[in-house]
Amino acid sequence: MPDKVLSQQLYDAAMQLGDAAAQVTLRYFRSRDLSADNKALAGFDPVTVADREAEQAMREILARIRPDDGILGEEYASVAGRSGLTWVLDPIDGTRGFLSGTPTWGTLIAVCDDTGPIVGMIDQPHVGERFLGLPGGAKLLHRGDSSPMRVSATTRLDDAILFSTFPEIGTPDERAAFTRVADQVRLVRYGMDCYAYGLLALGQIDLVIEAGLNAYDIAAPVAVIEAAGGIVTDWRGGPVWQGGNAVAAATPELHAAALALLQDGAGGP
Amino acid sequence: MPDKVLSQQLYDAAMQLGDAAAQVTLRYFRSRDLSADNKALAGFDPVTVADREAEQAMREILARIRPDDGILGEEYASVAGRSGLTWVLDPIDGTRGFLSGTPTWGTLIAVCDDTGPIVGMIDQPHVGERFLGLPGGAKLLHRGDSSPMRVSATTRLDDAILFSTFPEIGTPDERAAFTRVADQVRLVRYGMDCYAYGLLALGQIDLVIEAGLNAYDIAAPVAVIEAAGGIVTDWRGGPVWQGGNAVAAATPELHAAALALLQDGAGGP
Repeated sequence: MPDKVLSQQLYDAAMQLGDAAAQVTLRYFRSRDLSADNKALAGFDPVTVADREAEQAMREILARIRPDDGILGEEYASVAGRSGLTWVLDPIDGTRGFLSGTPTWGTLIAVCDDTGPIVGMIDQPHVGERFLGLPGGAKLLHRGDSSPMRVSATTRLDDAILFSTFPEIGTPDERAAFTRVADQVRLVRYGMDCYAYGLLALGQIDLVIEAGLNAYDIAAPVAVIEAAGGIVTDWRGGPVWQGGNAVAAATPELHAAALALLQDGAGGP
Repeated sequence: MPDKVLSQQLYDAAMQLGDAAAQVTLRYFRSRDLSADNKALAGFDPVTVADREAEQAMREILARIRPDDGILGEEYASVAGRSGLTWVLDPIDGTRGFLSGTPTWGTLIAVCDDTGPIVGMIDQPHVGERFLGLPGGAKLLHRGDSSPMRVSATTRLDDAILFSTFPEIGTPDERAAFTRVADQVRLVRYGMDCYAYGLLALGQIDLVIEAGLNAYDIAAPVAVIEAAGGIVTDWRGGPVWQGGNAVAAATPELHAAALALLQDGAGGP
């Protein structure tokens, strides 16, 4: 764990990055021009103008205030650092949600050393919510209010609320593994993008399962959920902050139950 | 169309109802007690304390300021009116979203004469957004800002963004009909509850398809979307404001294309 001075510096920097990204994303969110542009793009992982501008804004700040740290971002080439710390940035996680006008996308910001994320942020600026994972704990900032976050105490799958971006993503085998868990839980919901991880940290939902993530999709959620007392691993139980298939759970019992079902296929996924 | 004085009175009353409902719902939204309570309930259409209290609050206001109007609400018995006007109330549309902490549920308020809704509101108080359909047009109120709403100009299914509560709802035949449309569109998203209708009125998405609706689920969305220039009917092209299977579209062309596919089964749904 980093010392208090460094933690505070990283927190302050993350807040600055979040503010800068929000200025850009909110300018483009729900603009008609953006929708029109994207109709010309093939597929549905549009790299929008907003995405690129927001990452550029964050990189400019880091170059100024944290010049020795590395940067791994979705939109531009990686920057090697000299400090042992790397900023992992996704300016708009949930581009389909962004294009559809749903306040479910978020700006994901994490700073990691070689053991994992130290500080993480899931920022949803349209709602005005910032889910933060810090060495001292997790908190939600919501339009000026700050409140601590703590995961739920749910231990059983049949009491659990599960969120996922399935049915949109994953291979057939991954989908089958997900379905084994989905069939056992109390409620499954879709379409929440990275906001689902914030809801897990808040204690509102109990499980999130996703496939095919990059480091910039999951490093910040790992920081937020772990700081709120939850567990995030890959589908084999190993670390996932550098990417992979993720299972995030409120409690060790729930995590173990989901993991068993995810691995229960013909040889496991 | 009602005269201007009556329209204004109905608008003012709807705003009062929305404010009263929000006071109740925001007190319960994301409370841990609520989640705990609902684990004891079977199934997933929980009638929460918040739902009942919010409808009661709205009914008390109507009894005082609109005593001659009828009331059709989700939670309590209907009240017959003498004015020819009926208030159609759903204090929390999207109870699963409410329980999960997602800001996708809404308070639905409409006032109808015997031809359909005159004024309608979709209120999402956590985000601070109120989607309004009025005789003079549609507008979005968002934390003090007011802006006119207008549906998109999308005419082709392969340009369209479709939202639905499927896969959660519907019979197998209804699901098959929905899938015929879903297979043709640009993007399908789930999990937005009534918020999807607001996004359609805003021009952010182009189609919403749902099954098994009651009047209190759809009367307010009909008012909002029609006032924004869109079309909402049942899957046969008839009126749906009193309930049924709904298809809401931005343009007549898109509506016709979706309707053709919905009716394209063995004899139609």
